[in-house]
Amino acid sequence: MMKMYSETPDTARVVPLPDFLAQARTLVDVHLNLLLPAELVSPTKLHAAIRWSVFAGGKRFRPALLLAVGETFGVASESLIATACALEMIHTYSLVHDDLPSMDDDDLRRGRPTCHVRFGEATAILAGDALLTMAFKTIAEDDKLPATKRVRLISEIARAAGTPEGMVAGQAYDLEAEARPVAAAELETIHRLKTGALITAAARCGAIIAEASPAELAAITDYAGQLGLLFQITDDLLDVTATAEAIGKTPGKDARSRKATYPALHGIEATRSYLASTHAAACEPLDRVERPTDLLRAIADFILEREA
Amino acid sequence: MMKMYSETPDTARVVPLPDFLAQARTLVDVHLNLLLPAELVSPTKLHAAIRWSVFAGGKRFRPALLLAVGETFGVASESLIATACALEMIHTYSLVHDDLPSMDDDDLRRGRPTCHVRFGEATAILAGDALLTMAFKTIAEDDKLPATKRVRLISEIARAAGTPEGMVAGQAYDLEAEARPVAAAELETIHRLKTGALITAAARCGAIIAEASPAELAAITDYAGQLGLLFQITDDLLDVTATAEAIGKTPGKDARSRKATYPALHGIEATRSYLASTHAAACEPLDRVERPTDLLRAIADFILEREA
Repeated sequence: MMKMYSETPDTARVVPLPDFLAQARTLVDVHLNLLLPAELVSPTKLHAAIRWSVFAGGKRFRPALLLAVGETFGVASESLIATACALEMIHTYSLVHDDLPSMDDDDLRRGRPTCHVRFGEATAILAGDALLTMAFKTIAEDDKLPATKRVRLISEIARAAGTPEGMVAGQAYDLEAEARPVAAAELETIHRLKTGALITAAARCGAIIAEASPAELAAITDYAGQLGLLFQITDDLLDVTATAEAIGKTPGKDARSRKATYPALHGIEATRSYLASTHAAACEPLDRVERPTDLLRAIADFILEREA
Repeated sequence: MMKMYSETPDTARVVPLPDFLAQARTLVDVHLNLLLPAELVSPTKLHAAIRWSVFAGGKRFRPALLLAVGETFGVASESLIATACALEMIHTYSLVHDDLPSMDDDDLRRGRPTCHVRFGEATAILAGDALLTMAFKTIAEDDKLPATKRVRLISEIARAAGTPEGMVAGQAYDLEAEARPVAAAELETIHRLKTGALITAAARCGAIIAEASPAELAAITDYAGQLGLLFQITDDLLDVTATAEAIGKTPGKDARSRKATYPALHGIEATRSYLASTHAAACEPLDRVERPTDLLRAIADFILEREA
């Protein structure tokens, strides 16, 4: 059991955010390692491709957010970890499929060859399919949670990952938008679905497992919605301002492929000011949560200031 | 509610198999139409691609098998239909991804352009991803079944569709096998995973929803395992013997691409004799089911004699 923060609301937090994130990442990686088929298990190439993609140095942001929300409501990590890993499987599958030649056509991710470059396109498609399937299996078989909660989590995540309300819909809008100019409202929709939906689901799943009240769940939903937006805006900004070394991929790629981004639409300065107001909007709903929310506020600060 | 067969074991069946299959297909199509996003809902191209692929004239064999097993155990179709539709979503996603240029590279399916030919490769990948996601959402949200049953069904189907025990693993083995000669035992494994696992899951889900006894579930599992094999052998034979018009795709394609098939490995005559013994092996376990199993036997006969 991960126990990094005290359960009593009025006790001071003892572990700073970087330590929380590092511990969350280790916990998630240990469990992912147990959940994914070993590379020695046949079909070995498929399982090697899955592990190559999952263990590629990701920050485990979605699992960490779920763990942080659960932690905020005093839930032990053993009740959270399977769902956290399922979210990372879905996030990874989406990266593998996004990187494919017919999609974003990326050769490099986090400084390493992408799945299809390393294992071939067919195996990359199958690796993504397998991860998506495994995510739902993982939650369905999580014996730490009652079945009623498991079906609610699966429903929540499937809606956030699918269409018309989720990530796949966002990807489809993004494809359509590449061919023509995009209005600000449309860009917001693309990001809300493509990145925001799964981030919101991560936070909501933590609250659902914790049996948060409807009012608390609504506050967490609002918080996470703004957090997702914050995440996307910083992502867009980093693509313009960072070096290849810092972000582990070719910078400026979004602009060259005429992808809809905030800096492209509003300019860098206006984007920075939007970033600040989004950060404030993320923290505001936390006032409605009667728990110590400093961990969740620290996550918003962390995204605002991130460099990769 | 579909009521095609009497519930009392000793009453004679009144509806012949072709009528059962036609009614099952209509029932499944009506519900799929309700479950899938409308084409007018944005992103419209994605939803058009999903519907193009799902409503492509498929026989709905997996849903029909689930309905037939449920019917055999006296379960009303309203408790079966959501899971039946979920299976068809997964089957359709697998066809869409299989047809992609980097996989089987098929331009034609059931006499129509495949999804990526009609809508582009990126949209086809997303349509498959969306269908897989929607399948699990559909079962998770099926309020006709208790949550305990829903998680069991999701686990069952995810195992049958994923890796290392399911369809995606079978696809991966098949990819590996294309490059070199394949032994008979290996071919059996490929088919058992690639086609058999989901067919077996369909039958098992019907029995699970019906709360069949462990002995009955085992008998249904054995029946369906042989049925899946029967299905694959007839598929391979049809590819060699049928005309393009009858099967709606280019015949002989498997042989040209050096895919592992029964006729390629054993010859046509030995394959026909294997077909007969597999049919007998499919019917034998039904003696252990204390229900009227003529519907399930009729399905085995139907596959043995199918022409497309």
